[in-house]
Amino acid sequence: MATFRHIKPPIAILTDFGYRDHYVGVMKGVIARIAPNASIIDITHGIPPQSVIAGAIALRESWRHFPAGTIFLAVVDPGVGTARLPIAIRTRNGSWFVGPDNGLMWLAADEAGIKTQIELVPELYHSGVFSRTFHGRDVFAPAAAYIWQGRPPKSLGHKLATIEKLALPTAKAIGRGLAGEVIYVDGYGNLVTNISRSDLERLRASFPGRRLLVKLESGGKIDLRNTYGEARSGAPLATIGSFELMEIAVRDGNAAVRYAAGIGTKIKVVVEK
Amino acid sequence: MATFRHIKPPIAILTDFGYRDHYVGVMKGVIARIAPNASIIDITHGIPPQSVIAGAIALRESWRHFPAGTIFLAVVDPGVGTARLPIAIRTRNGSWFVGPDNGLMWLAADEAGIKTQIELVPELYHSGVFSRTFHGRDVFAPAAAYIWQGRPPKSLGHKLATIEKLALPTAKAIGRGLAGEVIYVDGYGNLVTNISRSDLERLRASFPGRRLLVKLESGGKIDLRNTYGEARSGAPLATIGSFELMEIAVRDGNAAVRYAAGIGTKIKVVVEK
Amino acid sequence: MATFRHIKPPIAILTDFGYRDHYVGVMKGVIARIAPNASIIDITHGIPPQSVIAGAIALRESWRHFPAGTIFLAVVDPGVGTARLPIAIRTRNGSWFVGPDNGLMWLAADEAGIKTQIELVPELYHSGVFSRTFHGRDVFAPAAAYIWQGRPPKSLGHKLATIEKLALPTAKAIGRGLAGEVIYVDGYGNLVTNISRSDLERLRASFPGRRLLVKLESGGKIDLRNTYGEARSGAPLATIGSFELMEIAVRDGNAAVRYAAGIGTKIKVVVEK
Repeated sequence: MATFRHIKPPIAILTDFGYRDHYVGVMKGVIARIAPNASIIDITHGIPPQSVIAGAIALRESWRHFPAGTIFLAVVDPGVGTARLPIAIRTRNGSWFVGPDNGLMWLAADEAGIKTQIELVPELYHSGVFSRTFHGRDVFAPAAAYIWQGRPPKSLGHKLATIEKLALPTAKAIGRGLAGEVIYVDGYGNLVTNISRSDLERLRASFPGRRLLVKLESGGKIDLRNTYGEARSGAPLATIGSFELMEIAVRDGNAAVRYAAGIGTKIKVVVEK
Repeated sequence: MATFRHIKPPIAILTDFGYRDHYVGVMKGVIARIAPNASIIDITHGIPPQSVIAGAIALRESWRHFPAGTIFLAVVDPGVGTARLPIAIRTRNGSWFVGPDNGLMWLAADEAGIKTQIELVPELYHSGVFSRTFHGRDVFAPAAAYIWQGRPPKSLGHKLATIEKLALPTAKAIGRGLAGEVIYVDGYGNLVTNISRSDLERLRASFPGRRLLVKLESGGKIDLRNTYGEARSGAPLATIGSFELMEIAVRDGNAAVRYAAGIGTKIKVVVEK
Repeated sequence: MATFRHIKPPIAILTDFGYRDHYVGVMKGVIARIAPNASIIDITHGIPPQSVIAGAIALRESWRHFPAGTIFLAVVDPGVGTARLPIAIRTRNGSWFVGPDNGLMWLAADEAGIKTQIELVPELYHSGVFSRTFHGRDVFAPAAAYIWQGRPPKSLGHKLATIEKLALPTAKAIGRGLAGEVIYVDGYGNLVTNISRSDLERLRASFPGRRLLVKLESGGKIDLRNTYGEARSGAPLATIGSFELMEIAVRDGNAAVRYAAGIGTKIKVVVEK
C-alpha cells in the first residue's frame, strides 16, 4: 500500500503571487496530485508584482544553491493569456526551468548552461478547463510535476529554436571611476547595483592605495566597507553583498527610503581626489 | 531505526495568522510531533484577519486541486474561546476539513460532498494546557495530525447533527442584464464578483451579438475581455478569472484602489444600447 | 537508485528575512544539497528586521511544540560580518540551535536545557566563497544540514565556554498590583506583556474577590477576561494568551494601533478600589 518518498531533487517555486491568496497553495496541490512524493521548496512568492527583472535576478541568485536536477517553476507573467509561449528549459546540470517565455528564466538558465528548450503544449498533458488567467495552476505546475515524475519532454511539447533573452544594464568605466545603477532592491531596502566585485578590483588596481567613494544621484557620498557591521547604527555604507555585487545599505535602516532610490537609480564609484 | 515517509495525501493549512508571528510554525511543530511523516502544504496564511468569508472562498477555490484524501486544516476563528464548536467534516472523496464551526469550511465541504461531521472533544486526544486563544495549536492541529495518522474519528469526538452554513450573495437577472457584487479581493487588487461564466453565457444567449458592458457603482464602465493581456497597460478590464467568476482588473495595476471598491461593492453587467 | 526520506526530526527555520526576497529559499536550497531528505519547517521569517528580542521570544514560544531532536536554524543577525560568533547549542532533548551568538537562541535553549555549545568554524565544513553579509546561506544553513546528517560536532567547530545571554524585563509587585511592560507585539496588534498567569494568580490570592483592572500609560483601563470572545466587537480586553502571559487585545481590532503602544510600553494591573 504505502510507497516512499524518493530523494530526488525538489521542485523550487518562485512567483509574484504574494502571500495573501491561495494561488500558490493551489499550485502545490496540483503538484501533489501528479507527483505526490515531490519535495516542494518555496524560493519566494514576494517578487514585486509583474517585475520580470526582479524575478530574473532572484532566480539567478538562487539556482546554483539548489541540488543539480532541481525543477525550477517560475511564474511572473504579466502577459498571461497572450501570445507569449509557455516553455521549459533543460540545463546542463539536469535542472529544468518551467515558466513563461518572457525572459524571467533567462539569466539563471543561461548561467546554468542551456541544453534544450521546449514549448509546452498543455493540451498534451493536462485535461480539464484552462483558465486564461492562471497558467501557474493549469499550465506550469502540471508541467513541472510531470517533468519531476520523469515524463519524456516530447510528451509535453515540442522543441523551440529560440527563447526570449533578458539583458541587464552593465556598469561602465568612466574617467576615474565606474558608472552603474541599481538593479534590485531587497526587502530591507538595500540597493543592489550592477557594479561587481571584479569591477571594483579593477578600479582599485588602477588607482592603488586610493580611497573609493560611492556617489548617488541625490548627492549622497558613501564609504565602501567590508561588512554591514563596520558602519555605526543609522549610517550608510556600500559593500559587496551576497549577490557578489556592490550594494548600498543603511545599518539598522533602509537605504531605499533614505535616498528615495530604486531600480534604475544611477550610482557612481569614484577615486577620491 | 529509520522508517519512511508514506505517500499519503498531505495536510493542507489555511489560516489568517499572517506571516509575522510563529503561530503557523508552532502548528506545524505540533503536527510533526504527532505525525512526523505527514507532508504539510500551506494554502495561505494571508486571509484578511478574521474574514471568514474570504477564507471560505479561498478554501472552496483550493480543495479540488488537492489529492483526494487531503486533510484540510483551516483556522479563521474570530470566536475562538466562545461557544462555537471545533469540528471535523469528512467528505465523499475521503478528505477531511478540520477547524471552527463558523461556516469557514462550508462552501468547500458542501461542494466536495459531506459524509459525516463530528464535534471535536480535545480532552479525548490532547493532554496538557489548553490555551483559550490558540485552538489552532491546541485543538485543530492535533486533530488534523491524528486523523492523518488514521486514528478513528470516534476517538476524537462525537457525531454532530448539523453544522453552520455560509451563504454567499448570488447574482440576479435584471431588465437587460445582471446585478451582482464583489465577493473577494485578491492580493493584486482584482475584484472577484459573484457573476459566473454561466450567468454571462445566459445573458449573451438572450441578446445574441450585443456587446456587454460592466458597470461599477462609482460610474466606471468596463469592457469584457478574454484575457488580461487584451487590455493595454493601465486599462481596466473584466474577464472570467481562475474562480470561473467574472473579475475586474486593471492591467499592470490595482482595481480595488482605482475604483475604491471592495467586498460588497455592487456590479452590473448590461447590454449596450 | 532511489533512497528514502527518514522520519527524523525536521530542521525548523526562523529568520527576519521576510517574504519578499529569495534569501530563505536559498538557505533551503543549501540544506537540500547537503541533506536532501531533511524535512524543513518554517517557524516564521517575519520577525521584525533585526529584532533579536522578538526573535528570541518567538523561538522560546515555539521550540517545545516541535519534536525532540529538531534542529532549529535561527537568523536575526544585525551584527553579521562582525566579531559575533556563529554558534550551535545542543540541548538536553537532543535538539540543536544554530545561529549567531547574540542572545537570539538563549531564551529557548536555556528553557530546553543547554548541554554543550560550540563555536562554528565554517572553514571546517564549507568550501567556496563566504559572503560577509549572508551567513544564513554560507555559515548557518550548511551547519544545520550537516548536524541533521549526523556529522560529529567536533568536525564543525570547537567547544565554547560561554555564550551570550538575553534577559527580558520582569514584572514587579507594586503596592496593590503589578507593574510590567509590553515585550512582544504580534501581527494582530496584540500586546503581549511580561505579566504571567502565575503573577496574576498571586495577586488574586492576595486580594480575594476583588476585581483586577489593567492600566496603560495612555490612560486606558481594561478588564481582564477569559477569552477574546467575551469582549464585544471593537472593545479592548486583557487575557492570558497563548504565551501564558497577559496580553492586551481589541476584539476584531488592533490594540497596538488603538493605544499607540509597542515594545516597552508600561502596563499595570491594579486592584479596583
